[in-house]
Amino acid sequence: MIKVGIIGATGYAGAEIVRLLQGHPNAEVVWYGSRSYIDKKYSDIYGNFFKVVDDKCLDDNMDELADAADVIFTATPQGLCASLVNEAVLSKVKIIDLSADFRLKDVSVYEKWYGIEHKAPQYLEEAVYGLCEINRDKIKSARIVANPGCYTTCSILTAYPLIKEGLIDPDTLIIDALSGVSGAGRGAKVANLYCEVNESAKPYGVATHRHTPEIEEQLSYAAGKDILLNFTPHLVPMNRGILSTEYATLIRKNGSLPSSDDIRKAYEKYFGKEKFIRLLPDGVYPETRWVEGSNFVDIGFKVDERTGRVIMMGTIDNLVKGAAGQAVQNMNILFGLDEAEGLTILPSFP
Amino acid sequence: MIKVGIIGATGYAGAEIVRLLQGHPNAEVVWYGSRSYIDKKYSDIYGNFFKVVDDKCLDDNMDELADAADVIFTATPQGLCASLVNEAVLSKVKIIDLSADFRLKDVSVYEKWYGIEHKAPQYLEEAVYGLCEINRDKIKSARIVANPGCYTTCSILTAYPLIKEGLIDPDTLIIDALSGVSGAGRGAKVANLYCEVNESAKPYGVATHRHTPEIEEQLSYAAGKDILLNFTPHLVPMNRGILSTEYATLIRKNGSLPSSDDIRKAYEKYFGKEKFIRLLPDGVYPETRWVEGSNFVDIGFKVDERTGRVIMMGTIDNLVKGAAGQAVQNMNILFGLDEAEGLTILPSFP
Amino acid sequence: MIKVGIIGATGYAGAEIVRLLQGHPNAEVVWYGSRSYIDKKYSDIYGNFFKVVDDKCLDDNMDELADAADVIFTATPQGLCASLVNEAVLSKVKIIDLSADFRLKDVSVYEKWYGIEHKAPQYLEEAVYGLCEINRDKIKSARIVANPGCYTTCSILTAYPLIKEGLIDPDTLIIDALSGVSGAGRGAKVANLYCEVNESAKPYGVATHRHTPEIEEQLSYAAGKDILLNFTPHLVPMNRGILSTEYATLIRKNGSLPSSDDIRKAYEKYFGKEKFIRLLPDGVYPETRWVEGSNFVDIGFKVDERTGRVIMMGTIDNLVKGAAGQAVQNMNILFGLDEAEGLTILPSFP
Amino acid sequence: MIKVGIIGATGYAGAEIVRLLQGHPNAEVVWYGSRSYIDKKYSDIYGNFFKVVDDKCLDDNMDELADAADVIFTATPQGLCASLVNEAVLSKVKIIDLSADFRLKDVSVYEKWYGIEHKAPQYLEEAVYGLCEINRDKIKSARIVANPGCYTTCSILTAYPLIKEGLIDPDTLIIDALSGVSGAGRGAKVANLYCEVNESAKPYGVATHRHTPEIEEQLSYAAGKDILLNFTPHLVPMNRGILSTEYATLIRKNGSLPSSDDIRKAYEKYFGKEKFIRLLPDGVYPETRWVEGSNFVDIGFKVDERTGRVIMMGTIDNLVKGAAGQAVQNMNILFGLDEAEGLTILPSFP
Repeated sequence: MIKVGIIGATGYAGAEIVRLLQGHPNAEVVWYGSRSYIDKKYSDIYGNFFKVVDDKCLDDNMDELADAADVIFTATPQGLCASLVNEAVLSKVKIIDLSADFRLKDVSVYEKWYGIEHKAPQYLEEAVYGLCEINRDKIKSARIVANPGCYTTCSILTAYPLIKEGLIDPDTLIIDALSGVSGAGRGAKVANLYCEVNESAKPYGVATHRHTPEIEEQLSYAAGKDILLNFTPHLVPMNRGILSTEYATLIRKNGSLPSSDDIRKAYEKYFGKEKFIRLLPDGVYPETRWVEGSNFVDIGFKVDERTGRVIMMGTIDNLVKGAAGQAVQNMNILFGLDEAEGLTILPSFP
Repeated sequence: MIKVGIIGATGYAGAEIVRLLQGHPNAEVVWYGSRSYIDKKYSDIYGNFFKVVDDKCLDDNMDELADAADVIFTATPQGLCASLVNEAVLSKVKIIDLSADFRLKDVSVYEKWYGIEHKAPQYLEEAVYGLCEINRDKIKSARIVANPGCYTTCSILTAYPLIKEGLIDPDTLIIDALSGVSGAGRGAKVANLYCEVNESAKPYGVATHRHTPEIEEQLSYAAGKDILLNFTPHLVPMNRGILSTEYATLIRKNGSLPSSDDIRKAYEKYFGKEKFIRLLPDGVYPETRWVEGSNFVDIGFKVDERTGRVIMMGTIDNLVKGAAGQAVQNMNILFGLDEAEGLTILPSFP
Repeated sequence: MIKVGIIGATGYAGAEIVRLLQGHPNAEVVWYGSRSYIDKKYSDIYGNFFKVVDDKCLDDNMDELADAADVIFTATPQGLCASLVNEAVLSKVKIIDLSADFRLKDVSVYEKWYGIEHKAPQYLEEAVYGLCEINRDKIKSARIVANPGCYTTCSILTAYPLIKEGLIDPDTLIIDALSGVSGAGRGAKVANLYCEVNESAKPYGVATHRHTPEIEEQLSYAAGKDILLNFTPHLVPMNRGILSTEYATLIRKNGSLPSSDDIRKAYEKYFGKEKFIRLLPDGVYPETRWVEGSNFVDIGFKVDERTGRVIMMGTIDNLVKGAAGQAVQNMNILFGLDEAEGLTILPSFP
Repeated sequence: MIKVGIIGATGYAGAEIVRLLQGHPNAEVVWYGSRSYIDKKYSDIYGNFFKVVDDKCLDDNMDELADAADVIFTATPQGLCASLVNEAVLSKVKIIDLSADFRLKDVSVYEKWYGIEHKAPQYLEEAVYGLCEINRDKIKSARIVANPGCYTTCSILTAYPLIKEGLIDPDTLIIDALSGVSGAGRGAKVANLYCEVNESAKPYGVATHRHTPEIEEQLSYAAGKDILLNFTPHLVPMNRGILSTEYATLIRKNGSLPSSDDIRKAYEKYFGKEKFIRLLPDGVYPETRWVEGSNFVDIGFKVDERTGRVIMMGTIDNLVKGAAGQAVQNMNILFGLDEAEGLTILPSFP
């Protein structure tokens, strides 16, 4: 039984890790870390776990935790994980960090976009970007897994095969994304009150959202060159779900556009055998409801011969594949388990 | 492996049976019956099952189905199940009927409230009312299980112990209930369009809702006498969930009101060991979000010394404990399995 | 032109006063009071007023305000208005208080239910309870109008005629009410975050909600005797709207129940000429969507011969008739204007 | 008093015309046309108009209507208006058509995208595209005004000044738009049921949506050349609102990008004096909640120096500026009234 510690167990992502691990045959939570609720019963905060989880919340004591656990999930604001990690800790326990601390290789990019000093840049090189379907092999032996962001997971996977295969011009890539409100976390802010969010849609972080450099870095690896792109997130009134609609100019070969079949083959080549990625049939586009509660990524596309562009669309549940689910998937890879353990929950509708 | 046939597999309750049985270790769906979608792929209608369920929808052929299946769930409008059931069918297969056809013992009450002729009244006496926590023993050997309605499951369980123990005057019972919209089914009606339901709350079926006689019949058994009550359902803008808020006058003993402890003891007596019923601590009241997606029933209460009444409150997920989950629970009882098989899914929040 | 000052202009009720007064032919806002946003542009906080309101927010200086305004609306937490009011102020300006400070005549009841000391009990007797349709005449000459609570406005008006006419037994009155989330105000609390409220319904303040004594006091006047009742509020996921479903035992005359016609006549007697109260036809029940954005109160009822009870149902928009709209209606009465001025906005659907 | 007839008065757009005209000082509805509800009281279908509108629904008799009305709004499916219009009708009455019948000048484009034969192509040349802020002068003397689509109104206005001023390369224009559900109309379709739409976001009509040629035609006039673009609509769970997020490559002048000031000047040049268009300050982006219920168009933008693109964002209420409000604005222009008559309703929040 893998012993799991969670720092930030009372945020939405932390609670989703708890939910998933309750159904995991080979892992159990031994530490429900939550600075805000120390000594309170976990199920007093998340009533869904009443009579399911009897534990109380504990302080974020990294040293004790490293002794108690085999793996630690840090589901905390940026900066915290980097401030806690060191050789003593890493010698005892694996770290799966759900914050952005170890996602970007270039510390100056991190410090510019996040506006905080990085407390452990010495681990940036070593940390592995935990996008399971792309980096599976490297993850196996990592000490620190940087669990990808929610928007980034969806945005990267949706475009990756077409960039990798040179079917689209990466400099034309535009990503327009929608997110449910749970992505904003459980902090008490006026902007996230029910009445402020309900019955409205809005863009935010236009040309400045922090997931931009993360998407750019990963897709640059795929393109084999540095790329810049536009990424615009929007908040829409629903609890869960991310939808990325992405546009890029198709690269003509011998004067003709790639066909839908060419596009499909590229997706099949990279994702055809992936358990959690579902390539939708022609004419079917992803909807967030069909992945809600599950670790699935649904991807569809449309070639527009009129404009010479392809429209790529992907959906995930931001709390599952966009956070807790991918974190558990990374844990499974780290510990040599079947990648789907604890992740067999189907999407629930309606 | 129990072979399951579903008639009405493309309604919301039918689809929820499919979702639950995908995770059931001892049952599999062998017949996805849907008159409206014959020969269409099931996952074309419910995209959440894409790459999960590959079957096509079949016609509602009861004879073939009885040969193919060990148990049939009928998740169909009133009247259909009664029209299909006969000795030949019952000799081969168990029936769990999610419609109201076999819930009421008195055919005249059925015909009055539902306004249709009953096609198989000869089975009314034999059919067992499938409220698992109350009728577990009778269900074991039933041929026809009448799966309770969503409002009724919640409303009955919330009041049952207090009536059974004589703590409240059943003639003062008033049930005020809220339901999410999935309870209205998947039929294409203007009244259930997004814009008609969203941002509004409304009562309906005031003093005439069909679940009234069902609640009255079952609580009359508990009271040991015939009772009449008020039941008012309301539609509120959410997908799932039922909340019953129930009022009754407490019966004084030697001049004094029953205490909160007395009330709690009654609940504990009947439900203390029930896996799916969670009695909430004093001062905590049920919220539909904490049971969503699960088979749980959450119950809380408050003694109001000022008015001498008790307020009892219960919540369920109308599609799970209020329909598909209880149906699977009944199947488990019928086939001698652990009652919780296939029903271990935890509530998902947010 | 009536000069209006608002203390608490950046809460939801305050902002609704602003919206309504923009369309008022004889009133203008001269003071947008908001401690939290002093010197910020009002339209930076409420973007709907961009290019409509150019003013900045001001501190809550009651003395200056009393000089600048003809009437002051206090849309603030309990206790503030009582702490600001005095003879100097009242000699210059009318006060319409949207908090509970002057709603209850008995200071001990106030202090018990609200848990705070009352700073100006000497004005309790003088203050007029501003339920326009009932207290119109007294309001005309008031110095302090205690604007009723949202639940109370809806709950009282829905039952008033039947109690007044002796058609129901007031001791059997049970009020089960639903509210949209704007009633909880704009404070940054986890409990009111989008993801906490969305897709859930819950009771709260069970047997302890502060609107209970307010309803009891007013309905006691109608009954001509002290009454106690049960009032249970529920939060449902929508922005606006209150629905009160109320139950009471009908009083038989010469052995027979009052008929629907008897009930209707009582409602017509008190409200038949009221511009803002709409008595719905038999078989039609109120829905919050039909009053949203307007000052209407919709009322319907159903006699249940089976149980001898009547079910009364009323709806309002909690921010309009339940707060800002009634406050403007009170201002119109105070200043001798047509009661409907500034309140002609129709319900908007969908 | 202008006499108004509405064909399709019981659709959402028709009902919004009714709402707006109730507050119009110089117009009154004399004909509530609705084939589906002939002889039913209008307020039985739209309860918000109970005690406000007493009329019954009438059949769609164009000849009688032309005699009774000064102007006819056709808020009906494509094809109907074209089938009803002729010289006899046009000699008596102005037509404001909310369908697409007269929006496109090229009948072959209409027949290709809409898949139906045009019954009155002889009026295409004469009809004026009723985008008030652009075509005001031509509208004044029109007999047929083609009221623009909801997506198109928002999408065109948001990009128009930058194309007109040559600041962006129109061939790079990508429009990603979100809509509330009322845009889908009031037809009883499974796809628009509450549970199908709620808690989900989806793209639809990808590269094939019928508003595409309408946007292209109008922006081609602005560009002075034919342009093709990508337009992707998405459905999000809210009643009202459209948000267009648009991307285009900025055209460098002497090697440098246009500045934010350059962009702002272009918007000011065309819209600076428009009553219904609000240009937001730098760093502020439009949100649908701030225009809900009103005829406002809110526009914001962001220059992204990294990619050399500008992101333009616009919001409208799809039923007001996107349908009924613009129709009333067109009526005001046609009859020489102040353009804002009947359109002074402010956005309502929350």
